[in-house]
This record gives sequence, structure tokens and C-alpha cells, in this order.
Amino acid sequence: MADIEPTNPVTYVDELARRARRAAARLATATTQEKNDAIRKGADALIERNDAILRANARDVENARAAGKNAAFIDRLALDKDRIEAMADGMRTVAQLDDPVGRNLATFDRPNGLRIERVAVPIGVIGMIYESRPNVGADASALCLKSGNAVILRGGSDSQNSAREINAAIAEGLSGAGLPKEAVQVIGTTDRAAVGAMLEAVGKIDLIIPRGGKSLVERVRDQAKVPTLLHLDGNCHSYVHADADLEKAADVVQNAKQRRLGVCGATESLVVDRSVAAEFLPMLQGKLGDCELRGDEDAMRILPGITAATEADWDTEYLDNILSVKVVGGLDEAIDFVSEHHSGHTDAILTENMAAAHQFMTRVDSAVVMHNASTQFSDGGEFGMGAEIGIATGKMHARGPVGLEQLCSFHYRVHGEGQTRPA
Amino acid sequence: MADIEPTNPVTYVDELARRARRAAARLATATTQEKNDAIRKGADALIERNDAILRANARDVENARAAGKNAAFIDRLALDKDRIEAMADGMRTVAQLDDPVGRNLATFDRPNGLRIERVAVPIGVIGMIYESRPNVGADASALCLKSGNAVILRGGSDSQNSAREINAAIAEGLSGAGLPKEAVQVIGTTDRAAVGAMLEAVGKIDLIIPRGGKSLVERVRDQAKVPTLLHLDGNCHSYVHADADLEKAADVVQNAKQRRLGVCGATESLVVDRSVAAEFLPMLQGKLGDCELRGDEDAMRILPGITAATEADWDTEYLDNILSVKVVGGLDEAIDFVSEHHSGHTDAILTENMAAAHQFMTRVDSAVVMHNASTQFSDGGEFGMGAEIGIATGKMHARGPVGLEQLCSFHYRVHGEGQTRPA
Repeated sequence: MADIEPTNPVTYVDELARRARRAAARLATATTQEKNDAIRKGADALIERNDAILRANARDVENARAAGKNAAFIDRLALDKDRIEAMADGMRTVAQLDDPVGRNLATFDRPNGLRIERVAVPIGVIGMIYESRPNVGADASALCLKSGNAVILRGGSDSQNSAREINAAIAEGLSGAGLPKEAVQVIGTTDRAAVGAMLEAVGKIDLIIPRGGKSLVERVRDQAKVPTLLHLDGNCHSYVHADADLEKAADVVQNAKQRRLGVCGATESLVVDRSVAAEFLPMLQGKLGDCELRGDEDAMRILPGITAATEADWDTEYLDNILSVKVVGGLDEAIDFVSEHHSGHTDAILTENMAAAHQFMTRVDSAVVMHNASTQFSDGGEFGMGAEIGIATGKMHARGPVGLEQLCSFHYRVHGEGQTRPA
Repeated sequence: MADIEPTNPVTYVDELARRARRAAARLATATTQEKNDAIRKGADALIERNDAILRANARDVENARAAGKNAAFIDRLALDKDRIEAMADGMRTVAQLDDPVGRNLATFDRPNGLRIERVAVPIGVIGMIYESRPNVGADASALCLKSGNAVILRGGSDSQNSAREINAAIAEGLSGAGLPKEAVQVIGTTDRAAVGAMLEAVGKIDLIIPRGGKSLVERVRDQAKVPTLLHLDGNCHSYVHADADLEKAADVVQNAKQRRLGVCGATESLVVDRSVAAEFLPMLQGKLGDCELRGDEDAMRILPGITAATEADWDTEYLDNILSVKVVGGLDEAIDFVSEHHSGHTDAILTENMAAAHQFMTRVDSAVVMHNASTQFSDGGEFGMGAEIGIATGKMHARGPVGLEQLCSFHYRVHGEGQTRPA
């Protein structure tokens, strides 16, 4: 927004939010065709603007290196031709998904003749706060647009130049489709007070979605007066029950731990029944290769070479090639252990006993509970949502993968013929 | 909780929440029969304990009078035999409603053979903060129990004795049904720091529902780190369009304004098209009798005796026999005016023109939009929900009437046969 000076973060965010609200009113009644057109043209513009985006990104990378950021940080920040193409492809995928707006969610025909419909509508204005990962801005833009929401993006300070160039491409797509470019705006200041202003913009921003590390998400949770959709950690468990098919279970747990180490659906803790531990643990260890196991006393007796788990291990999301191992007496103890230490993201039971599976799945209070499947399936794409903005760990509004449907609210439409309510 | 001393509000609330969490785990898998049994036995106990409740309430009323509370306050606080019977009847109604827990909300069969179900589950531990209206505690207890949630009640300080006696009856019902009495607990201190402790009990209390005046709800919104479900004001509009059946519209608007003056679904502002204002306004004035009209210049020209509306009037929820009157040039201006001034609760259009009705209902962003019906229908009972805990004015999770279904969360159950996720 070249024409607003971000000198005062509060008035600046208020002005962006006012523009977003007007754009949201237009988007709420935009046709599916208009929204898809904007998203596809935005994807095309990303490709056409490849050179400008890479130049801006190179400046960001140079500054981040100069500021001493580590290699993992630089890797998340840096773009190349392939990554820009992947962003454009991601946007085109969203254009292909069903429009979530206007879906009839329920109809009540009342005895007095009123017909009441519950209809999906956009949330309105979404504030997205994330780290220096330019692709998150493109993903969020497409998902918010398709769900009829205006979005205000506040990416990490170190990605400002990249974010601005990507936003220019998105704006080109919006204009090309006849939609207001204020539907997607980027906070044009690195002043952290702008984040505070977003968190307090009650009635101006309808929802804040933070994506990033635990400290960012916790800051948002604690300071926000605006409603939030939080994505906290995934301390996921796989529980091998006495009646498990141990070969199958070992394959599933290996995949749940090691398919990708850094995703929130990765299993961080193995729970295993004492009656099968002596057979199962060596079998699993063989499959896990160089994975570091941190066990309780029972596990250490069975696998003498492994590390001793501390109390902190049970609550740790490693996002690394490490697995904590707890031996339990049976189903009830397993459920209690998981309930005490999980983060409510995803937990799985491996068993051929359907009654035990049912107990586990009804008593463990996680966003996703699984039976005989890898916790790494906890993902919007795998659920058939096509694309997701994250995995919500709270219990209100959305839980688990947040896709287009979860980026909608609903309202009631009451159709009458002049009914008045009796006293 | 006679055995916990509320000397330190934070540790006190934490201990109540710990007990509530254990009770919630039991409630989450309680059968419908067990929950209904607890609610019905609680209702019976309310009647049996009539005398003790009335004695406790008399002490509350006496103290409130001595503290100089006004007549409306005393009326909300005071109980009699009929009001206790009405509370018991309300609970029995909830016992008759369908159990919202365990409903299958969606099923996805995936190409890899995974079956994914979205299933309704309780939210967990709910904190209810309300004013000195003892009946709210009984209603909330029944609704939370039926939806499988444990609840911690914090009513107004002036109703402490009544709340304790009512809670004793609810606890008797729970024990009689074999359910833990910690499923419904009352905060046993009038220390306002206990409210602060509830608002900050992240991970211990899953949801705070405030019921009461605007200042209470705004305090909760601003201070809560725990998710909230807010019930703010109802500045509801009825819009009489050029193509309205004016006789019908006048009847509906009269009902929308005057059926009950103090409910949040009451119309506070009339918007009328200029082309029909001269005919409609005198007709409506005749039906409204002694209602005070506060109009803009156009309205005052048509009805010379009425008061001039100030800017503040357009944003005011009167909850009284007063109606603001705005004359507009047509549909677009009406939608803009409503969108600027409404509180997002309920707004209605009166017209025989279906295209205009559709425009209004898709472009006005309220929890409930109506066509040719009284805004006073905005009520969980009228929607067929059987009972409600309030009308949510936010856009996340629940919007509009909050009944048993809205007091649930959901989770995903993934049924596999040993699937692992490809790289």
C-alpha cells in the first residue's frame, strides 16, 4: 500500500482493515468463476514476475545472511525458479477445488411455516501472521480468496521484499479478474507494533491465524483480543496394543516416525503394551536404523543400549530422528499416558482388536485419532481437502486440518411470509 | 467444594479445573441414558429442595437490597416456587433433546482405503461467567451435561447462596445417576480474581461463555487467553423495501419491536425506502401506540411530532419501547446503512420482491438474516434447537443460537488397515 504511511502502526492497521472490509464485502458475493480467475491469473503473474521476485528474494537472503541467520532459516526464506513454480501450482490447485461459500449446511422447516437455512459464508477479514517463508503468503492468499475472505498478511521481517513482490503478482491476478486488490494486502512495515495492532483490532479483523514456532503462536494466543485459530505443536503418539499385528505395527510406526521428521504429524512417542514389548521393540529398532530411542526402565531392559528418557522427553515434540518409548500395562494405562502428555494433535492405536481400537478412539481427546494407520496421514491433502492452511490444535470452530470449509463461517437465512412471533 | 479453600484464586481455579477435567473424561463416554438420568434427577432435587433454595435466595435478596440494588436487579435474582418449577421444567426439556455427542458429521473414503469420519465430541471443560440470575446456572448445567461437558459456574456475587443450593440439587442428580458431581462445580468465592484465573486457564478450561451486560462480555473478550463464545448486543434492523406488502410489514415490524422489549432479537432500528415511507410510517405509528420514534429528517417530515435521531441512536440497542427510523433511497443504501450500524445479530427485510430479498440476505453479514419475518424469531427454541445458552454474535465456531450441537467440538477418526504414507 504505497499510499498509506505506516508511521502509526495502529492507524495504519486500521486503514488496511477498513480497505480489507470493503474488499471482503465484494468477495463475499463474487462468483466462483471470478475467484478462480483471480487465483489463476495470480499464479500466471508469479511465473511472469519470476525475475523480479528472485531479485527481491536475493536482497532478503543477503540481509538475513548479514544478520547471521542459520542455514535452516535461509533455506525456508530462499526462493528459486522451482519454488516459484511450486507456489503457482499450489494456487492453481486451490482454483480447482469446490467453492465452499454458499453451501447449505442444514435446513429446518418449522411448524409455523418458517424455513430456516444454515448457509456457509466467508469469515470476513483474516489476519495471517507467519515467519519468513514467502510461500506461506501465496498459499494463504489463494485459500482466503477462494473462501471469499480478505486477508492481511504479516510475514517475517526478513522476507519483506519477497512478500511485496509476490503480493504484486496476486494483486495483478485480482485486478485482472475485476476483483479489488485490497482483498490481499501485505503489512508494509517491520515494526512489531503492527502485529500488536492486528491482535487488538476487534471488529476490524475477524480472525488471526498464526503460523510458526511455539513462541509466536503462544504470543498470539495470550495477547489477541480478536478470535484466533492456533496451530500448536504435534506431540503425536503411536500405541502398540497387546493384540497388534506386530509386523504391520512396526511398519506403520517406522513410517509415522521417519517418513518426514519435521512435520507436526510425525510420531514423537511410542507407547507399547508390556506383553508384546520384548518381541516388538527389537523388531522396530531394526527398522528404525539410526533413530535415537529414549526409553523408560522397561524399554531399557529390553533394549539395553538406548538412552534413558527424562520426564521432559514425554512432553517433547522432537521434530528429529528421536523417539521416546514408554511401556505400559494395557489399554487404560496407555490412554491415561497419552492423555497426560499429548498435545491433542494426532494419536494412533495399532491393534487387531476392534473393541480396544474403539475405546482408544473415543477416549483419547485429539483432533485426529487413528487405528492402524501412520500419524503422518494427518494432513489436509490426505483427508481430501485439497489444500490446508495448517492443523488446528484447539477445539473451537476448526480442529485438525484447516481447509477451505474451515475458513468459512455460516449464518442463518430465515424465509417467512409475514410471520409474527406469539407472545 | 467444601474441601478446597479458595484462599489463592489461581490454585483454587486450577484445582476445580483439574477435577472438572477428570469428570469431563467420564462424561465424554457417558451414555445418553446416564446423562438424561442425571438431569432428570437434578430437576427432581430442585423441587425437593425448594424450601432450602428459597431460604438461601431470601438471604441473597436481603443482602442485595441492603447493598442498594435496584428493582430490576432484585427481580432477576429473586426466586419463588414457580420459578424453581420453571428451572426444573427447563432441565427436563433438555433431557428430552437428542444427544449431540457421537453424531457422524462427515465421512471421507480415501483412495488408499482409509475411512475418515468427523464425529461430534464434547468440548471438555466449559467456564460459564454470568450475572446474579440463578436460573442461568440450572440451564447451563443441563445443557453442558447433555453435551458431555463439565462446567464451572461463576455467577454474580449477589447470587452465591442461591447458586450453592441449586448446585447441591444438580450434584444430587449426578450422584444418583452414577456420574461424578465435579461435572458441575460452582466457584465458591466472590473474589473477582477467580474470574481472572478462569480467563487465563489455558489448557485447563477449554471455553469461556460469558452471559450478561456488555461490560462483562467485553472484559472477557479483552482479557481471556482461553477461547470464548461471546454474546454481545443485538442492534437488530427491520428494513421495509419499496416492494413490501405494507400491511404485512407493519404487523411484522410491530411484533419485531414490541412483542418483548428486552430481548436481544428485538428490532431497534427501522429502515424504510423513501418511495413507501409516507404511506408506511403513519400506518406503523398507529400500530406501535406509545412507542417513541427517533427519526432522521425525512422521517420527521412525514411524522412531525417525533424526536430527532442523533448519530448515537443508530448504534444503540435500546431494549426499550423506542425505535430509530431511517429513510433510505433503496436497497443498496439500506444494506450499507445496516452493515454500518448493526451488531451482526439479526436483520430482516420486508418485501415481496424475491430478488431484493436475496440481495439483502446474501450481502448483510449477520448471524441471522430474515425475509418477511419478525426478528424476535431469533431464538434457539424457535429454530427447533429445543434450548439455547444464548445467541452468539461472533463468527467463529457458533453463530446465532447456541444449542446442544454448538456446545460440541468434533474430531476425526481415521480407520486403517496398516496404511503407511508414501514419501
